[in-house]
Amino acid sequence: MSVQSDPTITAVDAQSLGGGPVQPRAATVLTPLGFADVRLTDGFLSRLQQENATTSIVRGQQHLDRQQAWTNFANAASGTVGQPYHGPVFEDGEAFKWLEATAWEHGRSQDQQLAEWLERYIELVASAQAPDGYLSTFNQIAGKRDRYEWISYDHEIFNMATMIQAAVARYRTSGARELLDVARKAADHLDATFGFDKRREMCGHPLVEMALVELYRVTGERRYLDLASYFVEARGHGTLTDPTWQGWTSVYFSDRIPVRDTVYPEGHAVRAVYLAAGATDVAVETGDHELFAAMRRQWDNMVEAKMYVNGSLGSRWEGEAFGDPYELPSDRGYGETCAAIASIQWTWRLLLATGEAKYADLVERQLYNAVLSGVTLAGDRYFYVNTLQVREGAIPYDDRMGAAGRQEWFGCSCCPTNLMRTLASWHHYMATATDAGLQVHQYGSATVCGGGLQLSMASDYPWRGDIEFIVDDAPDGERELSLRVPGWAAGATLEVVGDPVPIVPGEYARVRRSWRTGDVVRLVLPMTPRTTRGHHRVDAVRGSVTIERGPLVYAIEHVDQGAGLRVDDVAIVSTDLAQEWRDDLFGGIPVITAAARNLPDGDVGRLVAIPYFMWANREIGPMKVWLPIDA
Amino acid sequence: MSVQSDPTITAVDAQSLGGGPVQPRAATVLTPLGFADVRLTDGFLSRLQQENATTSIVRGQQHLDRQQAWTNFANAASGTVGQPYHGPVFEDGEAFKWLEATAWEHGRSQDQQLAEWLERYIELVASAQAPDGYLSTFNQIAGKRDRYEWISYDHEIFNMATMIQAAVARYRTSGARELLDVARKAADHLDATFGFDKRREMCGHPLVEMALVELYRVTGERRYLDLASYFVEARGHGTLTDPTWQGWTSVYFSDRIPVRDTVYPEGHAVRAVYLAAGATDVAVETGDHELFAAMRRQWDNMVEAKMYVNGSLGSRWEGEAFGDPYELPSDRGYGETCAAIASIQWTWRLLLATGEAKYADLVERQLYNAVLSGVTLAGDRYFYVNTLQVREGAIPYDDRMGAAGRQEWFGCSCCPTNLMRTLASWHHYMATATDAGLQVHQYGSATVCGGGLQLSMASDYPWRGDIEFIVDDAPDGERELSLRVPGWAAGATLEVVGDPVPIVPGEYARVRRSWRTGDVVRLVLPMTPRTTRGHHRVDAVRGSVTIERGPLVYAIEHVDQGAGLRVDDVAIVSTDLAQEWRDDLFGGIPVITAAARNLPDGDVGRLVAIPYFMWANREIGPMKVWLPIDA
Repeated sequence: MSVQSDPTITAVDAQSLGGGPVQPRAATVLTPLGFADVRLTDGFLSRLQQENATTSIVRGQQHLDRQQAWTNFANAASGTVGQPYHGPVFEDGEAFKWLEATAWEHGRSQDQQLAEWLERYIELVASAQAPDGYLSTFNQIAGKRDRYEWISYDHEIFNMATMIQAAVARYRTSGARELLDVARKAADHLDATFGFDKRREMCGHPLVEMALVELYRVTGERRYLDLASYFVEARGHGTLTDPTWQGWTSVYFSDRIPVRDTVYPEGHAVRAVYLAAGATDVAVETGDHELFAAMRRQWDNMVEAKMYVNGSLGSRWEGEAFGDPYELPSDRGYGETCAAIASIQWTWRLLLATGEAKYADLVERQLYNAVLSGVTLAGDRYFYVNTLQVREGAIPYDDRMGAAGRQEWFGCSCCPTNLMRTLASWHHYMATATDAGLQVHQYGSATVCGGGLQLSMASDYPWRGDIEFIVDDAPDGERELSLRVPGWAAGATLEVVGDPVPIVPGEYARVRRSWRTGDVVRLVLPMTPRTTRGHHRVDAVRGSVTIERGPLVYAIEHVDQGAGLRVDDVAIVSTDLAQEWRDDLFGGIPVITAAARNLPDGDVGRLVAIPYFMWANREIGPMKVWLPIDA
Repeated sequence: MSVQSDPTITAVDAQSLGGGPVQPRAATVLTPLGFADVRLTDGFLSRLQQENATTSIVRGQQHLDRQQAWTNFANAASGTVGQPYHGPVFEDGEAFKWLEATAWEHGRSQDQQLAEWLERYIELVASAQAPDGYLSTFNQIAGKRDRYEWISYDHEIFNMATMIQAAVARYRTSGARELLDVARKAADHLDATFGFDKRREMCGHPLVEMALVELYRVTGERRYLDLASYFVEARGHGTLTDPTWQGWTSVYFSDRIPVRDTVYPEGHAVRAVYLAAGATDVAVETGDHELFAAMRRQWDNMVEAKMYVNGSLGSRWEGEAFGDPYELPSDRGYGETCAAIASIQWTWRLLLATGEAKYADLVERQLYNAVLSGVTLAGDRYFYVNTLQVREGAIPYDDRMGAAGRQEWFGCSCCPTNLMRTLASWHHYMATATDAGLQVHQYGSATVCGGGLQLSMASDYPWRGDIEFIVDDAPDGERELSLRVPGWAAGATLEVVGDPVPIVPGEYARVRRSWRTGDVVRLVLPMTPRTTRGHHRVDAVRGSVTIERGPLVYAIEHVDQGAGLRVDDVAIVSTDLAQEWRDDLFGGIPVITAAARNLPDGDVGRLVAIPYFMWANREIGPMKVWLPIDA
């Protein structure tokens, strides 16, 4: 089937072309902006986005090439079964996540090299697709098993889902339909194969739910939404089994309890949260209020009892899984980078649907403290696991471990490619529009256009908390500008064209007025360091505090400690914190210091804390986020 | 080769026949007693030993029969390759551990049913052995791989090692040599196959080191000691690889660092500690003082930084492994029952070699708190994992989990059979002899004969701390009676024939005198409940205490808490502990109570603690060993 042959497609283009990730068709409280409407112009995140483009994506292409990920597609295209297959069964998915990142980045930069890669690899992918739309090169090449014979393990549907997401990104950022054609053929194959009245199964690894809803959003093809809804409803009845004897259970697969009855996300964290994001998409597009309420409850419970202070998810290495409620030992923190990224995707969907500031607060917490920790500042090495503590004498027996330091690539390299697509599309998460006006959720230096307003935002965020907005263009009549005041920002102030405006942390400051070009708005978020205590049920943090400053969770790393303070033994003797700008660290950052001493009764000194996500960018050694108090 | 043909055997018999586990040939500070020299006559441990005989061993025979463990031997005897194999590759080893337990129990009770089983199964085992001595039914039946092709995974040498241990037990308790012949043939096969100048490899799962040294002790065949020494020295050079792609590393296999250079035991806890016990045997028999010093250092470091308060070992589920030093989160405690048993075996060897009370102290701590917790009081269900905490809402997704409760059997049932052989031979760990006299290490009601003295010991230990010894027979002249005063027994008193004798906790009370029949010795170990704090590096126990009483670690279980106290939220508000005898619990035990309240600011009540090892004998629910202090 060719895309052009679909009568709905042209109508859809007008609204979907130019969009970013997540463009709801159903009415939501907030409307996302197009990929051209927000642009990071300067500052910390802008530089990271640039590193992502020039280092991460470029090296990613080399790594995937070295791993022969694309060779698999060439071999599948040849149609010969029994050829050597390269990588894990989900290698296609990593190639497609990289392809999606490349599409977003190309949309942003129009870089020629990226354009060439996109054309070359999309052509290769199209040639590898089976005539009936099936596409998963492991099964096409190796021919070890029938299609979907090991549906819980072989990631076939997952692989097609990542391709669909890449196709949506490619289409929205360029209007090019080649990959979208492949995506529709794959989706039609899935639709012809799976359903309550067809093959009543689902993939061991959720993702297709989100992908199908987005494809529905682009094409207007209702069947894709219905199929996504099927995959959500079919799950949770204990039908997935473990063909590999690795001890996976229905808990691992998020298949123990139907999604709409689930109270806490459980099992493999990335799978559970991808599923939750997809279920939220389905609820939004189908207007299923019961399902939507269930997803909000799941999110509240996850944040309350199954999330580390830095926003990372997953406290069990076995099964890369969520633990029981409040089971959050720092030293065993798994916090897969992909899990935090999946949570941002889920949380962003809840924000669009509700407009509640707590969702934007979590997106910020997870980006800075659980996602950015997954990559070096240079953009060349990655953490798969984001632990909150590394001790003296830790043995790096596993390349995912904190003590092993960040790695250039992994046998399972989902996290690097997931980071790439997240950073390449990060600007989409910064602002939204409504009929009334513009909402700014995340801060930095950027130009923002939406809801009738065009603004320039200038800030050295997250290092400094003063953010200046200048109105570059505004229509006649009143427009509302909404600025998120983070929950942590006690004492925040807002000044609109010289007049102070009262604001409340944890809510949006809403300013409705007739704007003129040149109007200036100043939001000041106090960057006073603070200490945070944990829930009394979390044993590992009892009698301890974390240091936070603005959106950043801080950590102590051995290399910064003087006066013989040892990370494994140090305790804070006073919660009076001081901050100090250090030009010599990472090109200039604020460090936080506190009076401390070694337990049980060692020397006193001042410990030095740096932003958690920056740890392990120098040498690898002991690190700790939670600090005992001996005051 | 027939045992009778060995000229050394007869000479050896005299000294080895009648011995218990571990009968050193080299001179050690303490000499173990024969299996007939110590007999539990009454009391708690005696009843457990009886349950082990009448319930555990009997049901074990049924479980192994159901699992067709013996069918594997019958099929191997038929010599046909390609037949169905039943159970994991180490199923032979579980059958042999049960056979060893049966041998010790038969030696103790002379039970006819046990005698029949021993004869039947030993005949079957002999018929299954290959002509050259090889015996591992998985490889013999399935014929999937060459012998030792997957030496790190297939447990072939491990399986033969468990058979050798069973053969030694059978021989020492009966003089019967049928299985000893099989053991020697297997050992000769191993000796002909492995060595620095032969096949330079070793088993992925240590155990053969201990087994070969014991076979040397029985037979006097030096080659077996040399081969054990080879297996110890060959390890630690990173030669073991993972054929199954499960991510096992040289750390997992205790193959990263040579045994004599290892500072902390690491990797798979059971393997690491079996290896340590075998290396200690080798050091003792070869007089290798450097290796012996290294094993003592390893033990000190394990106890200091890698052991839970209850004596259980292993804080990582992934790889069933030791964590980094001080990485001991209660909620993720793995504490495999086999690991604590292995530690008792290792620690007993160090005790015999040194006579230091700290070793007997640990044997006691691990028996009561990390081994007995592995089986129900009825002897019919088992814990594989001994966690220190179960929360509300814990999902029992794995039958090893505390929240799943004890199980009748496991796919990997090493723990039940290991418990059986430990309880059936427990009396051997109670006392030793020297030329000077008799040493009593563990207390209860028993008759003890050694070092020239014959005693009756009467005590309701561990419930009550007063222990009475009556001399039943003594020679002319002076003999020394040594009684361990546990490190926890502050305020202990000793009265010898009416006269008080000063004693020091953590040391042996040594009384040298001319004894007369009827002399009475009274040792009183105060059973005052106490609170214990953890090391400041163990984050999960910060600001918390455990309750201990005598040798027992206590825990709180949800079923005992009144006044709405919740296990997950309760904190002690005063460390003034009270104890109360409760006839209604488990046939009568002392419980400990303390003023407590629910955090953050709930009602006040008195929490009720029971001995940790007795938890989950009623219903399964929240349980906790470490209690926060809110005083």
